[in-house]
Amino acid sequence: MIDSTHLPLIGEGPNLRADAVRNRARLLEAAARLAASHGAAAITMESVAAEAGVGKGTVSRRFGDRNGLLQALLDHSEQLFQAAFLSGPPPLGPDADAAARLRAFGPALLRHERAHLDLYLAAEPDPARRFAVPARRVRHTHVAALVRAVLPDADAEVLAHTLLSSVDVVLVDHLVRNHGMSPERVEAGWHDLVDRLVTRG
Amino acid sequence: MIDSTHLPLIGEGPNLRADAVRNRARLLEAAARLAASHGAAAITMESVAAEAGVGKGTVSRRFGDRNGLLQALLDHSEQLFQAAFLSGPPPLGPDADAAARLRAFGPALLRHERAHLDLYLAAEPDPARRFAVPARRVRHTHVAALVRAVLPDADAEVLAHTLLSSVDVVLVDHLVRNHGMSPERVEAGWHDLVDRLVTRG
Repeated sequence: MIDSTHLPLIGEGPNLRADAVRNRARLLEAAARLAASHGAAAITMESVAAEAGVGKGTVSRRFGDRNGLLQALLDHSEQLFQAAFLSGPPPLGPDADAAARLRAFGPALLRHERAHLDLYLAAEPDPARRFAVPARRVRHTHVAALVRAVLPDADAEVLAHTLLSSVDVVLVDHLVRNHGMSPERVEAGWHDLVDRLVTRG
Repeated sequence: MIDSTHLPLIGEGPNLRADAVRNRARLLEAAARLAASHGAAAITMESVAAEAGVGKGTVSRRFGDRNGLLQALLDHSEQLFQAAFLSGPPPLGPDADAAARLRAFGPALLRHERAHLDLYLAAEPDPARRFAVPARRVRHTHVAALVRAVLPDADAEVLAHTLLSSVDVVLVDHLVRNHGMSPERVEAGWHDLVDRLVTRG
């Protein structure tokens, strides 16, 4: 179980010298390649060191242990996703109108989490912290702002939780794995929900 | 952590002789009184025995250990709630139309879980089983049937998960405890969501 409570917000993180940043990025890219081809289970301090062509000690000095490495990998992936919806191209980013951004957000989140599924499942926080993790808070703030723009008379804070919960990574994994639901059907469910709300609003 | 995976459906459960049923009910009522006045933490084998005026051995023979006792208490409460929405009076039960029942279901669930909050939080299953527990399946089947009746063109299975997730016990506890949201506001959020969906549908 890795700790996702401290998933940093975008732009946070320790200040590292440029060469340390490059070394760190190189190790994370090696870990990401392993995860993409063999799943998170294939990520060990040894396998990442071998993939990056460095000694195991280099990986240990940078990330401490395997949990630290998985955590860093998840942070990296989360920051890319946050950049996409906060400042990326439309329809996800700020150049699209709020309704289009809201419509695009669910499938983008679903695809992002599907691409990193075993990392996210490994990082699932305990119930008491599930909704307090920074990554969830960033997503909620974003979705609530879009809801507020599209449905000014709705309780945006509550409705944003509903929308996010509808694509909860554990729920979607359950639907896909145990009920044979296609990811496309889950995405269509988000679009249908947003369309019903927005058309009426 | 008690195991809610095997929360029985209504009508399930071991066959007991009438006196055994009465004794069991008496112990559960004693435990429920303790939970109502002092919270689930006050429930121990000793306190329930004392409250029911029996020896600790009687409680142990019936429930095994404290987890077994908490489990039985939650089963009992869940069966009462299931009876209310499956066969109780309107607007929750079958004599109301589907839209009214759907509208009433969320607040009923919210109140039910709030009344037994620490039991439900203690029984929160691990992520992989969160959506597979029988109690969740019964609720989902029920809500999906109502959605199907009210919105024949919607993906009822997906939308029912969305509705249930919007009043997830852990989410609501987070909103009330950490964000100072009133239970009434969460209930209003359910009504608003259902009204927006049904008016459009």
